[in-house]
Amino acid sequence: MTTIRIYVTYKPSVFDPQGAAITNSVNSLGHDEVKKIVVGKFFDVTVDEDDLDKVKADVKDIAESLLVNFNMETYKIKVLEENA
Amino acid sequence: MTTIRIYVTYKPSVFDPQGAAITNSVNSLGHDEVKKIVVGKFFDVTVDEDDLDKVKADVKDIAESLLVNFNMETYKIKVLEENA
Repeated sequence: MTTIRIYVTYKPSVFDPQGAAITNSVNSLGHDEVKKIVVGKFFDVTVDEDDLDKVKADVKDIAESLLVNFNMETYKIKVLEENA
Repeated sequence: MTTIRIYVTYKPSVFDPQGAAITNSVNSLGHDEVKKIVVGKFFDVTVDEDDLDKVKADVKDIAESLLVNFNMETYKIKVLEENA
């Protein structure tokens, strides 16, 4: 088993409305020292396969076909567990 | 400036409907090797303060008062950038 985490964020050029709203809320709760909050999602994908290259190719396909909207979002992957 | 990432996930005992739906979709796209997908959120909080203990206390307060629903969710923090 291999577990890979896919991080999905808005592209830097795209306005992040949820992040902006949370930053405002945090500031109005009295935390003026908070300058910016950026929001993202992650997906921990557990695959029944130990060949890391195969798993990465699978995860790339899943991310690009289903999880990431390339008009607005971008993604990174990170291996969490190998041969578990 | 210090940037801390807050990871928010469902507690292990709580059903993750979005993760279950995505796992089903991925399986029906032909990726039978995918056993489980867990979904979470993250918040990158940039604070205008270099004292890491102060920043951690701030971020803990923000997470617990605003970002995390302790009935269903749990969180972890990770320092991304120090003295940037």
